[in-house]
Amino acid sequence: MNKKFIFTNLLGSFILNSKYMVIDKGNDENKLTSRYKNLFKPEGNELKDILNYFKKKQFFNEFYNKNIQLTKKQVKDSVNEDNFIINTINNIEELNKVTNTLVRRLREWYGLYLPEFTKELTDNEKFVELIQRKSKKQLLSEINVKLGDSMGAEFSNADLKPIMNLATEITKLYNLKESHELYLDRIMTRICPNMIAITGGLIGAKLVEHARSIKHLSELPASIVQLLGAEKALFRHLKSGAKSPKYGVIFDHPLISKAKRSDKGKVARALADKIAIAIKVDYFKGKFVGDTLRKGLEKRFDDSKSKR
Amino acid sequence: MNKKFIFTNLLGSFILNSKYMVIDKGNDENKLTSRYKNLFKPEGNELKDILNYFKKKQFFNEFYNKNIQLTKKQVKDSVNEDNFIINTINNIEELNKVTNTLVRRLREWYGLYLPEFTKELTDNEKFVELIQRKSKKQLLSEINVKLGDSMGAEFSNADLKPIMNLATEITKLYNLKESHELYLDRIMTRICPNMIAITGGLIGAKLVEHARSIKHLSELPASIVQLLGAEKALFRHLKSGAKSPKYGVIFDHPLISKAKRSDKGKVARALADKIAIAIKVDYFKGKFVGDTLRKGLEKRFDDSKSKR
Repeated sequence: MNKKFIFTNLLGSFILNSKYMVIDKGNDENKLTSRYKNLFKPEGNELKDILNYFKKKQFFNEFYNKNIQLTKKQVKDSVNEDNFIINTINNIEELNKVTNTLVRRLREWYGLYLPEFTKELTDNEKFVELIQRKSKKQLLSEINVKLGDSMGAEFSNADLKPIMNLATEITKLYNLKESHELYLDRIMTRICPNMIAITGGLIGAKLVEHARSIKHLSELPASIVQLLGAEKALFRHLKSGAKSPKYGVIFDHPLISKAKRSDKGKVARALADKIAIAIKVDYFKGKFVGDTLRKGLEKRFDDSKSKR
Repeated sequence: MNKKFIFTNLLGSFILNSKYMVIDKGNDENKLTSRYKNLFKPEGNELKDILNYFKKKQFFNEFYNKNIQLTKKQVKDSVNEDNFIINTINNIEELNKVTNTLVRRLREWYGLYLPEFTKELTDNEKFVELIQRKSKKQLLSEINVKLGDSMGAEFSNADLKPIMNLATEITKLYNLKESHELYLDRIMTRICPNMIAITGGLIGAKLVEHARSIKHLSELPASIVQLLGAEKALFRHLKSGAKSPKYGVIFDHPLISKAKRSDKGKVARALADKIAIAIKVDYFKGKFVGDTLRKGLEKRFDDSKSKR
């Protein structure tokens, strides 16, 4: 009886006769199996011989192309929401830095024109908005300074224009940041509703960014979630015995901001616990428990919302 | 005879009698002088007594207010074209950095969608422009890749939108930079036509920025003009004996870029010489010699423009 072998590799499935010649091939192993009776899976020396057969140069190009094709597909398929979240949150942070740089320049430049107002109003976004909307006189009257008393220089329109153009651009960058934040909220609500019920969009996204993916974040224990974003301080602690950090990006969470100083560590620990649970539920598509988790935390730590 | 004194300070001019009582005052010393005969300028003990008189508390407020008023006026008057030039050139440099940061993000983000094109086109401004104007298919055909072969992922409109919004903003920042450059050219043409005939607007503005003012720049010797902007390298040279720098911000000048490596130092020296002359002419409002100076340089160093 002639032994027949079935062998599958990157190029497909092959039926070989006892002399290791290909007598049939196809993409579906099951189909081939049903067509032939008494097929053997090659073992030991048989396998070695068959593998050697496929080492022939004639297959080289086929392997190469198939490989490229598969890799491309994998690259293509590897793009997912993680990438969107990470790019968006990174861009939001970049936009923060960028607008700060530009506002610092705007303040210095506009300060030649209206130093009193520039010094008085410390809120950047409001500053940028007001100087576009109001006249020198109106702005001065807001801070109770008479026009004649100002130390600001007279500007021709031509000299004021580049400053105003800069202000316009900064406003647009603020708007861009805002629309990014809305977009981020939308993705996060879709793919990790439980986590953002607790963290909100920004902190949630920063956690994903530090963990590099939702999957990886869901695998982390609460103690690491608590310190994500505080890596530097943690390693300083481990190396030189400095104080251990109590929180990473969750530091900005309202429950922690509101807590008394001595309680912050405790709140951070409880918060990280719930986040770690929530993101696991999200990753494994469990039912929505985010609200319950959040309310539990609020009841414990937020007097303003507890109804004891 | 009763001696009468005339004394002038911040508050104005005063006529005092021999008992150092004020009998008249005014803002114009000459007018007062013509009204009274035989006035003395106080000297020695007389001066001491009069100065003591003005130390009285009743004058304190007057001095204080007058001082504030004068200081305000001086601050106001101190704003001049130097400030505009320095703010504009600094903002142009900031906009360069800002757009680079944002384009880096845009490339990473858009690279998920169309990696082949992102990698192929290295010119940032062109990249930002093209991805806004053309479809995925058009962009791929420009680099001879078939749509099916791309490793880029499929994007929903909602996921593509934040990327495109970012691209739009970057374009606007490029436009802002361009309008700043035009504005800079206009001021510089007005106040230092001779220098910019040699340097062009950007390099000229950088020189002003490093010297802090046109006045100070006009006082610098050519050897310092040559090295403005290379302070770090200069101090490294002085402290550790590293190679001395040959040029600062004038490095970007076309005559230096075009020169052979071995000639660059010589060109920089000659260029700085002419700049130092030109800015002196500008500061002292001399007649226009910028063209002559530039042509002299071109004749010596730029074969493409010389007509020997």
